[in-house]
Amino acid sequence: MILITGAAGFIGSIVAKQFILAGYETITIDNLSTGLIENIPKETVFIEGSCGNKATIQKLNDFTIEGIIHIAGQSSGEVSFEDPQYDLESNTLSTLLLLDFAKKNNIKRFVFASTMSVYGDVVELPVNERNIPQPKSFYACGKLASESYLKIYAGLGIETYSLRLFNVYGPGQNLKNLKQGMLSIYLAQALNTDQIIVKGSGDRFRDFVYIDDVVESFKIAYFNAYEGFDIFNICNGQPVTVDDMIAKIFKNLKYSKPVTFSKNTPGDQHGIYGSNEKIKTKLGWMPKVNFEDGLKKMVEWALTK
Amino acid sequence: MILITGAAGFIGSIVAKQFILAGYETITIDNLSTGLIENIPKETVFIEGSCGNKATIQKLNDFTIEGIIHIAGQSSGEVSFEDPQYDLESNTLSTLLLLDFAKKNNIKRFVFASTMSVYGDVVELPVNERNIPQPKSFYACGKLASESYLKIYAGLGIETYSLRLFNVYGPGQNLKNLKQGMLSIYLAQALNTDQIIVKGSGDRFRDFVYIDDVVESFKIAYFNAYEGFDIFNICNGQPVTVDDMIAKIFKNLKYSKPVTFSKNTPGDQHGIYGSNEKIKTKLGWMPKVNFEDGLKKMVEWALTK
Repeated sequence: MILITGAAGFIGSIVAKQFILAGYETITIDNLSTGLIENIPKETVFIEGSCGNKATIQKLNDFTIEGIIHIAGQSSGEVSFEDPQYDLESNTLSTLLLLDFAKKNNIKRFVFASTMSVYGDVVELPVNERNIPQPKSFYACGKLASESYLKIYAGLGIETYSLRLFNVYGPGQNLKNLKQGMLSIYLAQALNTDQIIVKGSGDRFRDFVYIDDVVESFKIAYFNAYEGFDIFNICNGQPVTVDDMIAKIFKNLKYSKPVTFSKNTPGDQHGIYGSNEKIKTKLGWMPKVNFEDGLKKMVEWALTK
Repeated sequence: MILITGAAGFIGSIVAKQFILAGYETITIDNLSTGLIENIPKETVFIEGSCGNKATIQKLNDFTIEGIIHIAGQSSGEVSFEDPQYDLESNTLSTLLLLDFAKKNNIKRFVFASTMSVYGDVVELPVNERNIPQPKSFYACGKLASESYLKIYAGLGIETYSLRLFNVYGPGQNLKNLKQGMLSIYLAQALNTDQIIVKGSGDRFRDFVYIDDVVESFKIAYFNAYEGFDIFNICNGQPVTVDDMIAKIFKNLKYSKPVTFSKNTPGDQHGIYGSNEKIKTKLGWMPKVNFEDGLKKMVEWALTK
C-alpha cells in the first residue's frame, strides 16, 4: 500500500488516481483545509487529519505501507505569512513525522513535493539544482528544512527524492481558492469577476508545468529512488510572463476584461524558470505538454465547471 | 529591558550577567530542561517555560522588551536524533514565535545563537559564511531553518544577526551533561570516571572558542545590528584535534587516564574550523583567549567544583 498524502488536493488526487490505475493500493491523509473530500479517489483509504499531528500519523500503524509520497501541505506563500506556525507544522513537522514513521516501519521509499520557491530570487536563469536556496517566504523555508530532513534520513537508509515543483496547472486545479496557483487565480477571475486583479507586476515570469507531466514525475521518481537523497526540478524550462499568460487566457476565452495591478504579495519572487536537465539525464523524465496546449486544455475544462 | 532566552544555561547565563553589568534590565525564558535555575542572575526576571510554546511567549506581553537575544534551545546534535520533533520546537518554532513577537511589538533588534553545525562536512577549511550549509543533524537543520526566518524578518524591518558559534567552552559549562559540549564532556570524564570514552576518532578536530569571547560577540552583535540580516562565525580560527585536546586536559590535570574510542554519534562532523575574518572586519570582534590559556582557566575552575 502506498501512502499518498494530500489526496484531496489538486496534485495529490491525480497522483493517487494514477497509482490506482497502475494497480497499487493507496491510502491518504488529508486535513481538508483546502482540499475537497470528493477529490479523493473512492479506492483510496482516507484518514482525515493533519500530517503534522502525531496522533494522525499513528493511525497509519493499522496499515502496511510500502512507500510514501508526501504531497500534503499548506501551499501558498502568501498564506504562510498569515500563519507561519501553521506553515511550519504543515510543511516541515509533517515531513519529519512521516520520515520518522518510515524509519520505524522500514519503509524504504519517500518522494517529497518541494517547490521552486526555495530558490528565492535567482540571478542566473534557468535555475538548476546546484543553486544556493534563498527562501523568501515561510512556505519556502519550511519546504527547504524538509529537504534537509530528507537528506539526513537518506543517511539512515531511506531513499528520499525531493521534487521541486514549479508552477503546476491543469484541469482539477481549485478555481475557488484565490491564494494559490497563479494560473488558476487569473483564470478564475477571467471567468467569474469583472476584472483581473494582479498582485505584482505583469513582467514577472514563471515556469508552468502541466499536471499530467507532474504526476508522471512522481511515478518516475517513486520507482527510481535508488540513490539516497536527490533533488530534481520539475519544470518546462520556459519562462512565461504574467502579461503573456493573461493575454493567452483571454485568447482562449475569446474575450478580455480589464486588468488592474496592485501590490505584490509578501515573499513573491520576481521571475524564475528552471532547468530540467538533471531529471532528463538521470531519470528520463521530460515534460510533454507545452504551455499553449496545456492552457487550452485547462480553459476547456474550466468552461465545463 | 532585554530578553535573553536560556539564561539558566551556560552561555545565556553569562550573557545575561554581562548585560546586567552594563546597566541593562534583563528578562529570560528558560524551560530548565538542561539549564539550572541557580545559573539565572538574581536581577533577571524569570519566566519558566519553553520558547517554542505560544502561551509562554504571550507572558512577555506584560513587559517592555527593547531587544531579543535568543540563546535558548536544545543544543546537542546527538539528542536531536533521539527526539527530532522536540528539537524542531526548541530550535525553530521558538525562533519563529519570538520573531513574530518582535514584529508585533516593534522590537528592532534580534541576535540569534546559531551553530557551526549548519556547515556539515566542509572540504575547504577554514569555513567562511559564504559556504553552502549541508546540515547533518536535526539540530543543524533546525538552526539553519531559523536563519531563513531571520532573513525574512529582516525584510520586515527587524535587524537580525545570527552568530554561528563554534565549540564554546569555559568556566560555567555543565560538567554533568555528557551529551553536549565536547571539551566539558572529556574534562568531566577525566575528573570523574575511570577512563575517557571518545565517541568517534581522535583525529576529528574542532575550533574552540572561549566563553568570554563568545559573550563579547553577543554584545557587539547586539549593539551593532544595523544592516538587516547578517551571519557571523564566532570562532578562534584554529583547529584542535580530539587527541590533542585530551592530551592537554591531562597535562593540565597532571595525570592521565585510559582513553577508549567507540562509535561516532549520529550526524557528527569529522573536522571543522572557521574563519572569523568577516566579524573582525565588519564588527571589530576578535577572540582574545587562545586555547591553551582558556583550557587552563577551565580546568582550574573545574577543580573547584
